[in-house]
Amino acid sequence: MPQEDLIIKDPNKLLEEIESLHPSDIAKSLKKIEKESQEDFFYVLKKLPDEILGEVLLELPDYLREDAYEELSIEQLTEAVDELDSDDQTDIIQEIEELNEEKAREIYDGLDEVDQKEIEWLKKYEEDEAGAYMQTELFSAKAYETIKESIERLKEAKKDHELENIQQVYIIDEDKKLIASILLEDLIIFDFNDTYEKVINENENKFKPFYVDDDEDIDEVAKKFEKYDLNVVPVVGYQGMLMGRITSDDIIDVIEKNATEQMYQMAGVDEEHEGNDDLITIAKKRAMWLFINLGTAILASIVIGLFDETIQAYVALAILMPIVASMGGNAGTQTLAVMVRQIAMGDIELEHSKDAIKKEVFISLFNGLLFAIIMGVIAWLWFDTKLLGIVIGISMIINLFSAGFFGASIPLVLKKLDIDPAIGSTVLLTTVTDIVGFFSFLMLAKVILL
Amino acid sequence: MPQEDLIIKDPNKLLEEIESLHPSDIAKSLKKIEKESQEDFFYVLKKLPDEILGEVLLELPDYLREDAYEELSIEQLTEAVDELDSDDQTDIIQEIEELNEEKAREIYDGLDEVDQKEIEWLKKYEEDEAGAYMQTELFSAKAYETIKESIERLKEAKKDHELENIQQVYIIDEDKKLIASILLEDLIIFDFNDTYEKVINENENKFKPFYVDDDEDIDEVAKKFEKYDLNVVPVVGYQGMLMGRITSDDIIDVIEKNATEQMYQMAGVDEEHEGNDDLITIAKKRAMWLFINLGTAILASIVIGLFDETIQAYVALAILMPIVASMGGNAGTQTLAVMVRQIAMGDIELEHSKDAIKKEVFISLFNGLLFAIIMGVIAWLWFDTKLLGIVIGISMIINLFSAGFFGASIPLVLKKLDIDPAIGSTVLLTTVTDIVGFFSFLMLAKVILL
Repeated sequence: MPQEDLIIKDPNKLLEEIESLHPSDIAKSLKKIEKESQEDFFYVLKKLPDEILGEVLLELPDYLREDAYEELSIEQLTEAVDELDSDDQTDIIQEIEELNEEKAREIYDGLDEVDQKEIEWLKKYEEDEAGAYMQTELFSAKAYETIKESIERLKEAKKDHELENIQQVYIIDEDKKLIASILLEDLIIFDFNDTYEKVINENENKFKPFYVDDDEDIDEVAKKFEKYDLNVVPVVGYQGMLMGRITSDDIIDVIEKNATEQMYQMAGVDEEHEGNDDLITIAKKRAMWLFINLGTAILASIVIGLFDETIQAYVALAILMPIVASMGGNAGTQTLAVMVRQIAMGDIELEHSKDAIKKEVFISLFNGLLFAIIMGVIAWLWFDTKLLGIVIGISMIINLFSAGFFGASIPLVLKKLDIDPAIGSTVLLTTVTDIVGFFSFLMLAKVILL
Repeated sequence: MPQEDLIIKDPNKLLEEIESLHPSDIAKSLKKIEKESQEDFFYVLKKLPDEILGEVLLELPDYLREDAYEELSIEQLTEAVDELDSDDQTDIIQEIEELNEEKAREIYDGLDEVDQKEIEWLKKYEEDEAGAYMQTELFSAKAYETIKESIERLKEAKKDHELENIQQVYIIDEDKKLIASILLEDLIIFDFNDTYEKVINENENKFKPFYVDDDEDIDEVAKKFEKYDLNVVPVVGYQGMLMGRITSDDIIDVIEKNATEQMYQMAGVDEEHEGNDDLITIAKKRAMWLFINLGTAILASIVIGLFDETIQAYVALAILMPIVASMGGNAGTQTLAVMVRQIAMGDIELEHSKDAIKKEVFISLFNGLLFAIIMGVIAWLWFDTKLLGIVIGISMIINLFSAGFFGASIPLVLKKLDIDPAIGSTVLLTTVTDIVGFFSFLMLAKVILL
């Protein structure tokens, strides 16, 4: 059982208990140790048993993992990689490649041929393809085999720690084509002397495999996990050949990462670089978005500048104009958050986007009217000018309408252009609501008040 | 295999294929049918076989499910509920209770005693407790039993469709206390004539159960799933008694829901009411946040109002002041998104919050300096006044510093007060960056320029 929040000042104490700890807890302790002393961190790392070192590396934050790749010897890294599943092996080799190609090559050379072939294969997949997330280690059987024979094989594989987290047996034909998948909970109640052929024929359709393709987008795979309540799914490639499987723990990571990315993108933060330990790099990445925002803010200022004489004649306009822009920005952000999230979850589809726009326009017009009245009365009483109330009221309606319309349309247009709807949509939207807000308010004031 | 995007204009065609479809796909088709005709929707719903009606109901959006509860007969609802797992039974009964207590009571009375007891038990859990997410249907065995005996029981239970999605057998003692959990992948390779006692003793520690408590916060349980790559976890109650189990598909739903909630809360949207089909209700809920925003916008305007004479004397200030506020708001939102997400993921803990604040202040000061120079030069050239460049530069530094400091502190303080860090933090933050932005810029202008 994992012991949480295990903070160890004496690294040797951690090492004594290492066998009873989960890699994720060891990584957490190592992170704390590193904060105190990098020397201790490397000391513990080098003393970790090979069979858990790889798992621990995978749980470390990116910047610590990079330090570890540099500090650990080729021998130790090779042993650690050797213990991992094929998908994790590939990830680590690729990461080391980016830091030190020579070292990665030597580690690769130290692995056995089967592992090497699998790594070569998995490296071919793009980052967002299902194949990049699958592990090739799985429990499969031929149709003519008896259940007993296959279980004997499972037994051996488990003894050698080659297989774990098994929930299904995959039945394949001579060409490795996936023809059935049977849950262990179904398998365990069959007569083990039967062949797979027999149990499949006796249970027509029941074991028809649900699978994903190796080049399918991982986000689509994640949606299938959610929709069909899956725990694991086999991955097939060319001509339905069984390639590997994806388990729910990988999917949970994908879902969390996507959620973080969406939230960050809406706020103008680049998820990829936030984990960096160099604050200046993070600051520069965030500055890029702020720079774009500065551009749009200057645009809005130029709009205000068109009305400098109006403002000079009537300074109350300068006092009130941020309210119109701010309300538009907020109403638009509400719409944007709902749209971005629902597009991501598959609840809004491009074909039915008109309904979504209509809905958002209705809501924002409703609130536009409501706040037109509220703010109109406030402005009237505040500056004792009825017409000022009418000006701010009308511009509130105009700006909240455009907040709803553009808040709903921008992510849909981005999606149609195959751009992530979360990226940059906030900046685009506030540009619109600022410019529409300032322009409508000041223009109306110029026409009506002066 | 599920057929996606099955849009059926003739409801009878859907009914013909119903046996081969996944409930989640049926629900999707029903949603589309309802858009065309409510009559057809009810027609199909009433013709659904009992054994899938319950699952389909669970997959429908809230507002359609409510319609269904009203339209379906007590008999049909009772049959549908009867087919479900205990956690889903409880959810449906509780939802019907809110609409029609009498109807819920009659459905409850139509269930058998075991189901009734379990529902009564599950109803006691708070919405956010692990117990509310567990299903009580599970595969357990006594230590003195042989594996064979327990598998015979599993076989019967599966034949009656009482158990599914089984990944572990839970070994309990005479007091129902959980003493071991064994994965099916381990169980299947043992000699089935052995007793559980024997295999547990021969594999010391290997089957020590990892469990969660029934009153544990479901978000903590979700974190454990992520951290320890779980597929399922047993839930224990008073004195370690086995109560139920939580599977990864429930956890995936929890994670998605939390991510949506966080994103919505940051944007001032109430997730709970967005699913409503009454747009005026949604508009009113969103108006509540806009109303709070109006209050803070008026506050910022009052600050501007303090400097009406300064602005009248120098209208360039009115043109430039939104830039300072906007840059502060954006930098603060970046910090806020990172903090809210990292607090939620457990990456930032309250004890180490100082580090996080320091980091964010450093980043925002770095960018404050950068944009002070950029905007300083732009303002100088634009209005041909060097001092104006200095004023906007200094206020940019001040406002981005406070954006970083408050963007990092506000969610931490909210968390410490046991309030969800995402709720209202955007409004609080923009209040700060607006007021600090306008005040510092106009005050400096008054002192330096005039």
